[in-house]
Amino acid sequence: MADSVRIVEVAPRDGLQNEAVAVSVATKLDLIRQLRDAGLAAIEVGSFVSPKRVPQMADTDEVVRQLNLDGGVRYPVLVPNEQGMVAALAAGVREIAVFASASETFSQKNINCSIEQSIDRFRPVVEMAKANHVAVRGYVSCVLGCPYEVKVAMNAVVSVSRKLAELGCYEISLGDTIGIGTPWQARDMVRAVAGELDIATLAAHFHDTRGQALANILACLEEGVSVVDSAVGGLGGCPYAPGAAGNVSTEDLAFMLDGLGIHTGVDLSRVVAAGQFISAALGKTSRSKVAQSMCA
Amino acid sequence: MADSVRIVEVAPRDGLQNEAVAVSVATKLDLIRQLRDAGLAAIEVGSFVSPKRVPQMADTDEVVRQLNLDGGVRYPVLVPNEQGMVAALAAGVREIAVFASASETFSQKNINCSIEQSIDRFRPVVEMAKANHVAVRGYVSCVLGCPYEVKVAMNAVVSVSRKLAELGCYEISLGDTIGIGTPWQARDMVRAVAGELDIATLAAHFHDTRGQALANILACLEEGVSVVDSAVGGLGGCPYAPGAAGNVSTEDLAFMLDGLGIHTGVDLSRVVAAGQFISAALGKTSRSKVAQSMCA
Repeated sequence: MADSVRIVEVAPRDGLQNEAVAVSVATKLDLIRQLRDAGLAAIEVGSFVSPKRVPQMADTDEVVRQLNLDGGVRYPVLVPNEQGMVAALAAGVREIAVFASASETFSQKNINCSIEQSIDRFRPVVEMAKANHVAVRGYVSCVLGCPYEVKVAMNAVVSVSRKLAELGCYEISLGDTIGIGTPWQARDMVRAVAGELDIATLAAHFHDTRGQALANILACLEEGVSVVDSAVGGLGGCPYAPGAAGNVSTEDLAFMLDGLGIHTGVDLSRVVAAGQFISAALGKTSRSKVAQSMCA
Repeated sequence: MADSVRIVEVAPRDGLQNEAVAVSVATKLDLIRQLRDAGLAAIEVGSFVSPKRVPQMADTDEVVRQLNLDGGVRYPVLVPNEQGMVAALAAGVREIAVFASASETFSQKNINCSIEQSIDRFRPVVEMAKANHVAVRGYVSCVLGCPYEVKVAMNAVVSVSRKLAELGCYEISLGDTIGIGTPWQARDMVRAVAGELDIATLAAHFHDTRGQALANILACLEEGVSVVDSAVGGLGGCPYAPGAAGNVSTEDLAFMLDGLGIHTGVDLSRVVAAGQFISAALGKTSRSKVAQSMCA
């Protein structure tokens, strides 16, 4: 098991993107700075997707422009296509994230093209990134199941991961998008991907839809995974299960990692404060149980 | 890891005891029958404690009297002393649970006597149980921490567990009462106790105060633990952390065990229905994320 884990904080993007309450640029910047000051070394700050599809992310260019991108913290933004990449470069981003699904049906329904086509669509995006010294992270969604297919084939997960790596992604984040997996499924999936790619380049991305996220992460840590995505307040949702839990909460993850003796560089009380800040801005109770136990 | 796990459902006792909304005998019986019909083979149905201290449990004798105790399901009740044991026997119980703390300070503050004195207090209770062919289960509380002592000594957990076993308890339930532990702490604690007692006689009892319960249970399962306590709806609380989460939810536990390929004999949809039933009776949203994802 790794001695240290890098937490990739995704609340400002994956966490906020489906929230109905509009969050201002100032509030997003306040959140991002609080997360940075809490010791998080990678914070996904937004996405350059269609403002019609995801209105909450329409001001990502302004967020990026007002951020100080120096200081050793990674601030990736999600980019879906060349048009988004042009906007991202204009705003000055230094890291992007691209994404593909391990489920053919999900790919068709979510982005209206096949898995293969989605990879091809990212080819020029990644070339633009390389030409501009922009780092590229890759997401694979539906690694343990999808809303349309009963079972997602393990070799589809391996194949998409390899393709994203070959495209030039320095890290592949394996996402249980609908939070359907359990620990041995997570372990077997990571083992399969690690059979082809260096485990140091793999990240675990779990949604807590069925309460399994931390147990699944534990199983991934036991396999040697050393990068984990999470969102303060357990923000984020699943469009396929309204009312269900979102991303695993950074607070509960940091508490577990600390108890396991794994270094994260994160200050738990500051992370809790950041989670309480954004939960209050959204008018909701934090889903983090650590936060609930400390702030009740 | 065990092929099958016995879930001990504690919602009617540990789950309800601190709830302010009074639950009628009829509702409790309805809940217990739903839990039984869902396949739960051990259901803690109440406690014979002071009605002044725990008013919610004042009607346990009536609950037991109206239950059909036949049918191969265990229905333990918590008994704190000889007076409670007399009442339990009069009601016809066939299994009781006694309890001691691994923390000296917690024992003093919670039941006003030392750990040693609490064990002595249970001696005549267990003798009465044996004389009446009543099975005895033992709880050890504060196995990973307590509200008053920074750290609870591992040898205190081992020593109290052994004493309860020597007293005549057929099973020792190791309780993280304040939900403070993380997976390796849980693993090390179980290993220490299993060094003296057969692991088949140990149960894992986790509160989800900091969201760690399922991950901790996974670590215990990996050590060979095959009995796990839980409560539908994640009912239960921590008097030391108002607003904090309660017992690990039976729904989320059953989902994990099923995914791990471990037999429980439990019908998940019926367990979810029972959890929704009692949550509605209490006027609260279920804390089970599986329930939230299915019932949103």
